[in-house]
Amino acid sequence: MEINQPTLLLDKQKCQANIERMTQKARKHRVKLNPHFKTHQSVSIGKWFHEMGTREITFSSVKMAEYFADHGWKYITIAFPCNILQIERINRLSNSIHLTLFVNSLATAKFLAKHLNSRVKVITEIDTGYHRTGVLAEDTDTIEQLLNFIAKSDKLEFSGFYTHSGNTYHAKTRKGIAEIHSTTLFKLNQLRKYFSSISKDISLSIGDTPGCTLIDNFTGISSIHPGNFVFYDVNQFNIGSCPTNWIAVAVACPVVDKINKRKEIILHGGAVHFSKDYEFRSDGSKNYGIPVLLDENGWSTPYFDNYLYSISQEHGLLKCTSEFYSRVKIGGVIGILPIHSCLTANLMKGYKTLDGKSIDHLEGQPEFV
Amino acid sequence: MEINQPTLLLDKQKCQANIERMTQKARKHRVKLNPHFKTHQSVSIGKWFHEMGTREITFSSVKMAEYFADHGWKYITIAFPCNILQIERINRLSNSIHLTLFVNSLATAKFLAKHLNSRVKVITEIDTGYHRTGVLAEDTDTIEQLLNFIAKSDKLEFSGFYTHSGNTYHAKTRKGIAEIHSTTLFKLNQLRKYFSSISKDISLSIGDTPGCTLIDNFTGISSIHPGNFVFYDVNQFNIGSCPTNWIAVAVACPVVDKINKRKEIILHGGAVHFSKDYEFRSDGSKNYGIPVLLDENGWSTPYFDNYLYSISQEHGLLKCTSEFYSRVKIGGVIGILPIHSCLTANLMKGYKTLDGKSIDHLEGQPEFV
Repeated sequence: MEINQPTLLLDKQKCQANIERMTQKARKHRVKLNPHFKTHQSVSIGKWFHEMGTREITFSSVKMAEYFADHGWKYITIAFPCNILQIERINRLSNSIHLTLFVNSLATAKFLAKHLNSRVKVITEIDTGYHRTGVLAEDTDTIEQLLNFIAKSDKLEFSGFYTHSGNTYHAKTRKGIAEIHSTTLFKLNQLRKYFSSISKDISLSIGDTPGCTLIDNFTGISSIHPGNFVFYDVNQFNIGSCPTNWIAVAVACPVVDKINKRKEIILHGGAVHFSKDYEFRSDGSKNYGIPVLLDENGWSTPYFDNYLYSISQEHGLLKCTSEFYSRVKIGGVIGILPIHSCLTANLMKGYKTLDGKSIDHLEGQPEFV
Repeated sequence: MEINQPTLLLDKQKCQANIERMTQKARKHRVKLNPHFKTHQSVSIGKWFHEMGTREITFSSVKMAEYFADHGWKYITIAFPCNILQIERINRLSNSIHLTLFVNSLATAKFLAKHLNSRVKVITEIDTGYHRTGVLAEDTDTIEQLLNFIAKSDKLEFSGFYTHSGNTYHAKTRKGIAEIHSTTLFKLNQLRKYFSSISKDISLSIGDTPGCTLIDNFTGISSIHPGNFVFYDVNQFNIGSCPTNWIAVAVACPVVDKINKRKEIILHGGAVHFSKDYEFRSDGSKNYGIPVLLDENGWSTPYFDNYLYSISQEHGLLKCTSEFYSRVKIGGVIGILPIHSCLTANLMKGYKTLDGKSIDHLEGQPEFV
């Protein structure tokens, strides 16, 4: 495969192994895997999930849901506070597929009850500690109001509670992740019990990759919605969610210059390829990605002593050991394992498998831009 | 104009005023405005420059140069260390337009001398203190080697030196920017003198928006290549480059939820719309964007007491004053002035003018993805 510009490489084998591992884990624990497809946004990768039994999927926007509905997926959850400005698009979607929406406020519930054309399932997002979106688990008054309103509407069918414990991303140990995960399970199960008089059949759903990967307790949970596990990334490795050989994507970057005095390699590969997500290294410096060497079978283990310490729109500056510096030539191509694979995939808008086949991404599809 | 998803609004009047202001400034100081188009990447906006006399333009990738060459631009500089892996694309370009390349290393010069089909102009990038790319101004041995090699090649025509003083972005005062700017001018003029025996006609070029906007000394400079000034952004305002009413883009974001206890508004507008560039506020918290209220004439002055303090892939969390919080409703749309307009435009892939017209961006053009 000839590479002359930043190119997102996808190791199909690693990716399929990631899908299979999570599928098996869900089966073992008798929870439904309802994966979040915002990470890959690819119909082709969606097919690999389908082949392993996935039928219900999750997104964070109507745009993504439309793309996959157009490609035959019939059960879609939009795990994002329902955007009522998109009511026409929502009605079109719910005419053709089984749609589940997030309803976190009475204002949204009232609007939907009035403007939906057909009956849709709704989930209320519960904030068990991440404090991004959703109703606070402790705010049972608001939840009760919502559930009572939903119960009376013929357009809204209450399905259950959902929590994305994104705070596991800030936990730096397995123990920390386990504690957050336990708290989430405890609060969701309590709410189900508390509201059993309003709804007898409340499903509980959780979503984060660190928790779903590392923890084996799914008490009371009906479905899990992790997304990032399809690729993993350097961030997940640092959290402890995955070994480096589960990371299924790397950005191939042309080497355009070498700065001998600083022992730095200049890559074509910057913020428009990786995004600007970073991690801090132990010395306090920022790390935007870790290099690997490319070969005919994919890529090497990561060279953790080297790292992208600065990126601008198109430039990537790689701080190197003398040994790594001397192995890389101007006009060569090296790989960079991304810090955050979801944002990198979104920017790269498409993948190349190791045998050079193109794999779609929603953002590369002109009709959905 | 009906907005139901994150939409990049472009105030054409402000944008054209920005273009005209920089055009007039360049004329006044008798330097050529050779603007960097990486910020807008738009053929339509390019036309506004053309109408004001611009004929020579600058990019940071071959891909961008190809897009604009296909739309009739004839004089293009690729202000990025030449990527020799793209030699075929470079040769195709140089057959149809007047191309100028950056050659910062002997390895690259040798490769080009051997593989170029036609004669191209080359510029050597000089590092006067930013320490991103280019040859250190003090490293006259390396520059001399390069210039001697270029002088002997029939494929390479030496044109001059170029410096992007990106370090002005870290200067927080006009005085700081002026000092960096003076150092750059001094070093470039010294180099021209030093190498006058090798080349009699060395042009000097500089590029950063803060310096080109704020400073009135262009001694010895032939051309300026700022890019961001076409839109400016919150970052440029904070540096002191522009008042807020020069900022020509805002992302219109649907309001999807309100969290009363935290006085936070949840927007559809996240890292896939803004990028993850941020600034620190004086209290140490991160700021990913500043809200404005939209009206029929565009948008209000910014509400600086409110700010996007956290973004994930699609979510934006806006920390609000009680007053702002109470003015905004679920189902409404507010604007966010971006921290870094180049990355935001690149992610949004297209613009809407205030009267609802679509404006192209390279990344929204399927044939160039």
